[in-house]
Amino acid sequence: MIDIALFGLGRIGIMHGKNLMRSKDFNLKYIYDIEQKLSKKYSKTLKTKAINNPSLAYKDKDIKAIFIASTTSTHIKFILDGVKNKKIIFCEKPLDLSIKKIESCKKKIKRLNPKIQLGFNRRYDPTHNNLKKQLLSGKIGKLEKIIITSRDPAPPTMKYLKESGGIFRDMMIHDFDLVRFYLGNDQPAKIIASGSNITDKRFDKINDFELASTIIRSKAGVQCIITNSRHCSFGYDQRIELFGSKGMLISENKRQNETSLYSAQSTSNKSPLLNFFIERYKDAYKNQLKDFAKFIRKKIQPLAGFEEGRKALIIANAAQKSLQSKKFEKLNL
Amino acid sequence: MIDIALFGLGRIGIMHGKNLMRSKDFNLKYIYDIEQKLSKKYSKTLKTKAINNPSLAYKDKDIKAIFIASTTSTHIKFILDGVKNKKIIFCEKPLDLSIKKIESCKKKIKRLNPKIQLGFNRRYDPTHNNLKKQLLSGKIGKLEKIIITSRDPAPPTMKYLKESGGIFRDMMIHDFDLVRFYLGNDQPAKIIASGSNITDKRFDKINDFELASTIIRSKAGVQCIITNSRHCSFGYDQRIELFGSKGMLISENKRQNETSLYSAQSTSNKSPLLNFFIERYKDAYKNQLKDFAKFIRKKIQPLAGFEEGRKALIIANAAQKSLQSKKFEKLNL
Amino acid sequence: MIDIALFGLGRIGIMHGKNLMRSKDFNLKYIYDIEQKLSKKYSKTLKTKAINNPSLAYKDKDIKAIFIASTTSTHIKFILDGVKNKKIIFCEKPLDLSIKKIESCKKKIKRLNPKIQLGFNRRYDPTHNNLKKQLLSGKIGKLEKIIITSRDPAPPTMKYLKESGGIFRDMMIHDFDLVRFYLGNDQPAKIIASGSNITDKRFDKINDFELASTIIRSKAGVQCIITNSRHCSFGYDQRIELFGSKGMLISENKRQNETSLYSAQSTSNKSPLLNFFIERYKDAYKNQLKDFAKFIRKKIQPLAGFEEGRKALIIANAAQKSLQSKKFEKLNL
Amino acid sequence: MIDIALFGLGRIGIMHGKNLMRSKDFNLKYIYDIEQKLSKKYSKTLKTKAINNPSLAYKDKDIKAIFIASTTSTHIKFILDGVKNKKIIFCEKPLDLSIKKIESCKKKIKRLNPKIQLGFNRRYDPTHNNLKKQLLSGKIGKLEKIIITSRDPAPPTMKYLKESGGIFRDMMIHDFDLVRFYLGNDQPAKIIASGSNITDKRFDKINDFELASTIIRSKAGVQCIITNSRHCSFGYDQRIELFGSKGMLISENKRQNETSLYSAQSTSNKSPLLNFFIERYKDAYKNQLKDFAKFIRKKIQPLAGFEEGRKALIIANAAQKSLQSKKFEKLNL
Repeated sequence: MIDIALFGLGRIGIMHGKNLMRSKDFNLKYIYDIEQKLSKKYSKTLKTKAINNPSLAYKDKDIKAIFIASTTSTHIKFILDGVKNKKIIFCEKPLDLSIKKIESCKKKIKRLNPKIQLGFNRRYDPTHNNLKKQLLSGKIGKLEKIIITSRDPAPPTMKYLKESGGIFRDMMIHDFDLVRFYLGNDQPAKIIASGSNITDKRFDKINDFELASTIIRSKAGVQCIITNSRHCSFGYDQRIELFGSKGMLISENKRQNETSLYSAQSTSNKSPLLNFFIERYKDAYKNQLKDFAKFIRKKIQPLAGFEEGRKALIIANAAQKSLQSKKFEKLNL
Repeated sequence: MIDIALFGLGRIGIMHGKNLMRSKDFNLKYIYDIEQKLSKKYSKTLKTKAINNPSLAYKDKDIKAIFIASTTSTHIKFILDGVKNKKIIFCEKPLDLSIKKIESCKKKIKRLNPKIQLGFNRRYDPTHNNLKKQLLSGKIGKLEKIIITSRDPAPPTMKYLKESGGIFRDMMIHDFDLVRFYLGNDQPAKIIASGSNITDKRFDKINDFELASTIIRSKAGVQCIITNSRHCSFGYDQRIELFGSKGMLISENKRQNETSLYSAQSTSNKSPLLNFFIERYKDAYKNQLKDFAKFIRKKIQPLAGFEEGRKALIIANAAQKSLQSKKFEKLNL
Repeated sequence: MIDIALFGLGRIGIMHGKNLMRSKDFNLKYIYDIEQKLSKKYSKTLKTKAINNPSLAYKDKDIKAIFIASTTSTHIKFILDGVKNKKIIFCEKPLDLSIKKIESCKKKIKRLNPKIQLGFNRRYDPTHNNLKKQLLSGKIGKLEKIIITSRDPAPPTMKYLKESGGIFRDMMIHDFDLVRFYLGNDQPAKIIASGSNITDKRFDKINDFELASTIIRSKAGVQCIITNSRHCSFGYDQRIELFGSKGMLISENKRQNETSLYSAQSTSNKSPLLNFFIERYKDAYKNQLKDFAKFIRKKIQPLAGFEEGRKALIIANAAQKSLQSKKFEKLNL
Repeated sequence: MIDIALFGLGRIGIMHGKNLMRSKDFNLKYIYDIEQKLSKKYSKTLKTKAINNPSLAYKDKDIKAIFIASTTSTHIKFILDGVKNKKIIFCEKPLDLSIKKIESCKKKIKRLNPKIQLGFNRRYDPTHNNLKKQLLSGKIGKLEKIIITSRDPAPPTMKYLKESGGIFRDMMIHDFDLVRFYLGNDQPAKIIASGSNITDKRFDKINDFELASTIIRSKAGVQCIITNSRHCSFGYDQRIELFGSKGMLISENKRQNETSLYSAQSTSNKSPLLNFFIERYKDAYKNQLKDFAKFIRKKIQPLAGFEEGRKALIIANAAQKSLQSKKFEKLNL
C-alpha cells in the first residue's frame, strides 16, 4: 500500500479521506488541517494520525504522496513543498486563482520533474468518460459541437462566493477542462462569455453571476457551448452533448432512484436528480483515486495534471475579460 | 376511386366516414344507419347521400364495397347480404358474439368466394406493426414471450357493457388477435384467465370484470401474457413487449405532446397519454383503409380477415370458460 | 368558407395547398405560380382553378385572403398588392432578405390597416406551444435561460443556399422568432454569433456555414443560446429548453414511431426522428391555418405577424454583423 | 460494533463478507466454510479469522450474530444450532427446498424466541422500496395489479440447476416474496403457472424451465403477474409495475451508465443493463445489512424474516403443483 498524507479536512477533504481509508491502494498515514481540532476529530473516523505540521509528512520517507484538499490559496505552497520533498502530489482544483502564481510555480518546479495530478474529477465519471471513448472510436464521426450544462442545486455561502474568484474560475473551470478533454489534440482558440442575475440579486453586490453562458471556438472550428447556473430547483444538473458528423452522444443526468410515476396529471415522473457532487460523482472520485495509484506505481500519466489546471484558469480568465470587452478573446494555451 | 357505402353512424362509424371522405382511394357514395335522422344529419358533413335501405347499396352496381360499422348484432346479416351481392366487405370487430352464428355464416358464404376484411386496427398501428417487421427480420431471435398491456381510460356505459359480451369478447379480443399476429405460423394452444373487480363494483352486478389477466401458451411454448383494465387514470395504456432469445422489442405508449417538466418534486414529467382509440390509433385506421383499397384493387390479402375474427372469438370464449373451470382450456383453431 | 388564393407551388406551397383543400374553413379558389405548368398540374390534385395572373385573384371580390408561399424575393410585392386590394395576407417566412425593403413596405402599407400573418410555424407546434403555456402559468418561475437546438437532416442544394441569405437569415431566423415568443414582454438586447465549417467545406466557398451558435441576451438578463446545424445524421433535431428559477421545461424530439429495441449491444434503441419539417411540423401547419381562419373571421391577432418577420430579420442581420466585429451587437427592436 | 461470524464463502458469501468488513456496524470475527482452503484464503482478504468448526462461533459469547450464506441444504441446521446458542441469525434465501423441514424447524425453535432475518434483498432495493412507500402514501389509490419481470442474464451451471429445486423455488421465489411485500395485509389466494423451453433445450432433460409465467390472485382480487427467464441478452432485467385505481408506479431497470447514442440507424441508444445481482442490488445488500444491525440493536423487525421464507416456498410449491394439475392452486398462508 502507498503511504499518503491528506492536507485539508473541509467537506471534500473528508470525502477524500474516507475514500483513501477504504482504498486497497492507499494507507492514510497522516491527516493535517490548519485547525488542529479538525485533524484530531477526524483522526478517529479516518483511523489515522493527526499531525500539527505538514513538514512531518514531508520528512517521513515512507510517505510517497501528498493529497492536497485544503483551501485554494494554500495549494501552490503545498505543491512547492511537496515537490521539493520528492512527494507525488494530488491537488484539488483549482490550482490557484492567480495565473502569475501558477506560472511562477511551474518555473520553480520544472527541474524537479514534478508528478502532479489535478482533481478534475469529471474526466473520471463513468458516463462522461464513456463519451470520450465512443468519440475516439469514431461512433459520431468528426466532432462538431460540445454542449455542456452544469447547474448547482443551490449557491454556496456569500462568504465562499466572495473568495471564490467568480463563477468562471470557481465553477465553469470544470467545464473548460471538459471542453479540453473532448477536444483532444484540437485546442480552444477563442472565447466569449455572458453573465447575468435574475432571481438572486445578491450576486450583483459581489460582482459575480448566478447565470453564465459561454461560446468557445476551437482551432478546428468546433463550437463549444457551456451553460452554468448557481441554482437548480430539480437538483445537480450535469449533462454533456457531443454532436458529430455521424451522430450524437449525450451524457444524461443521474437520478436518486429509478421510480416512474403515472397519474391523471402527468406520466413517467422520475425521481429528482442526485443532489450534489459528492453523490453525483461518487464513482468519479473513486476512479480518480485508482488512477492516482496507477500514476504513483506505474508512472502512467493521469487524465489531468498541473497543465490542465493552468490551462483551465487561462480560459476562465479570458471568459472574465470578455465580459468587459464584450468580444471574443483569443486563447493562447 | 372506389364507390363504397358505409353502414352504421355511431362514434366509430363517423370516424370511418371522415376517413373515407378524405381518402384518395374511396368515393363515399352512400351512408346508412337504422336511425334515419343520423344518416340525414351526417350526409352533409360527409358530403354523401343518405339511404333508407341497405338494398339500395347492394343493387347499385358501381358500389364495389360495403363498410360495416353498425352494432355488432347486425354484422353477420350485412356480411351475408353483402357477399351475396358480390360486394367486398370491411367489417368492424367483433364479427359477432356467437361463434355458432359465425360458423354458420362461414359455411353459407364459403362457395361465394367472399372477400372480407376485419377491423383489427391494431395490426396497422405503425409501432405495433414495426415490431412485427423487426421480429420477422430476426432482430430478437426466437420469440419466447408476448406481453400485452391494454387499459381503457374509462369504462363504457353500463348499457353498453351489458350487451358487450364481457371484457374478453369485447376488449381483450383485440389482444387475442395481436397474439396471433405476432405468433405467425405458431398457434395459441391453451389459455387461462382471471377476472376481478376492486374499485368499480358495478361490474359485479353484470357478471363482468374491470380487471382481467390471461396466460396463453402457444404450441411452440411461447408464453403470452395479456393484462386489461376498463379504467386507467393516466390515459389509454397500450403497450406490447416481445421477448426473444436475442433481444426485446417494446411498443411504447403515445403521449399528447413531447413536453417534459422538471421541478423540485420530480423530473422528466411527461404529458398524459393520448386519450382513447380514435386519437391513439388515428394512423392505424388510415393505414387499415389503405390496405382495404389494396385488397379491393390488387386482391392482396389484408392483415386481418373473417378467420381472424372467428379465431379471436374462439380464444375469448375459452378464456371465459376457464374462469369457471379454473384451469387451462385447450384451443383448437 | 373563406375564399382564398394560393401563390407559389414549390414544396411548401403544395403542402399548404393540401391543407387548404382539406380545411373546413377555406375554399381554395385559385392557385398561381410563375410556372404555368405547375399551376395547371396541381389544379387537379388541389381541386381548384389555376390562374395565370395574380391580379385575377385581387380583382375577385369573393377572395378574402391571399396565401403567399412563393419565392422569398416575391413576398413583399405580393404583400403590397394584396394589401392594396384589401386582401388579408398569409405570408411564408422570411418576409424578405432586405431589411430596407421591409421597412419601406411597412411605411407604404401603414395607412391601409394591413392584416398580415407570418409563417413562423413553430409557434404553433403543440409541444413548443405547450411550453409557452406552462411558462405563463408560472410552472418554472422566472425565465432565466432559453436553449434552442435546431438541426436539419441534410443541407439544401448549393443553388438554394447561394440565394438563401445565409444560415442566420434562412434557418436560424425561426429560432430568433422563438426566442422572442418565449421572452414575451422582455426584449432581445444584444447578440453574438459564431459560424464554422468542419465536415462540408462547400459552405466555405459561398461564405456560409454548416454550423452556427449564438448567444442572445435579453434586457432582463435572460441568456438565450441557439445552436444550428445544416446536417444531422439522426434526423430533424428540434429541441427547446426553458430554464427558470423554479424548474425546467423541455420540448423533446418527435420520432417516427414508438418502437424500443433491446439487445446485447445496447438498450432502449428508439426509432430515428421524424425526417423534416413537413412531417415534424404537420400539426403546427394545421394549427397555423386554423389561427389564420380565426384572424380573418374574428380579427383575433395571430401568433405571428409582419412585425415578427421584421424583427427576426433585424436579429439575423445583427448575428451576421457580429461575425465580422467578433463582439456583441446591440439590438434595437 | 457487533461481533459476527459468516458461514459460507461462495460468490454471495464473499460479497456479504466484504460488506461486513466495510460496515461500521459489524466486526467480522470469524469466517467458516466446509472447504477449509476457502476460509483460509479469504481470512486475509476479509481481515478476519478462519475457523474449522461452526461451534467455535456458537461458543464465543462475544458473537452476537451468525450470517448464513452457505449451501441451501445447510441453512436449517445452522439456524437450529444458531438459535439454540442464542445467536441472532441472518440467512440467505431460500430457507430450504423442503417445506416439511422448514415446518419442523419452526416448531423446534418456537419456544426459543428466535430472531431470524431472511435474505430477500429486493425488498431493500432503493427503487423497489420506494414503490412500497409511494403505494402506502396513496399515490396510486387502491392496488389492482402487480406485474413483475425478472430475467437473469444467463443460466447457472447445469450442476447448480439440478440441485436448485427448479425455477419456481430457486428464482421466482424472490418475486413471490415481492408480491407479498406489495400486497401487505392482503394475501395471495391462488396461483397458476406455466413453464416452457424454447431456445435452451437442456432444461427439458432436468425437468426444469428457462421460461416461466405465473398469475397469482389475492384475496382482495389483485392480479399479480410474474414473468421469469433464465437468460436475457440485454442484461439483468428487473422491473416492477404497480397499477392502481389512481395511477401506476414503475421500478425501471438500472443501466451501466447514462450514455445515450444517436445515429442514422436509431436514437437514444442506452447502455446495457447492470449485469447481475451483485451489481444491480449493491445498494440493496448494503441496506439489508443496516437493517440487520438495527434488528440486533433495537429489536426492530426486519423487512423479511423466517415466515417470509416459509410462505414464499409454499407459493413456489403451489406453482410447481399447478404445472401438473393445469389449474389454479389454492394458497393457505
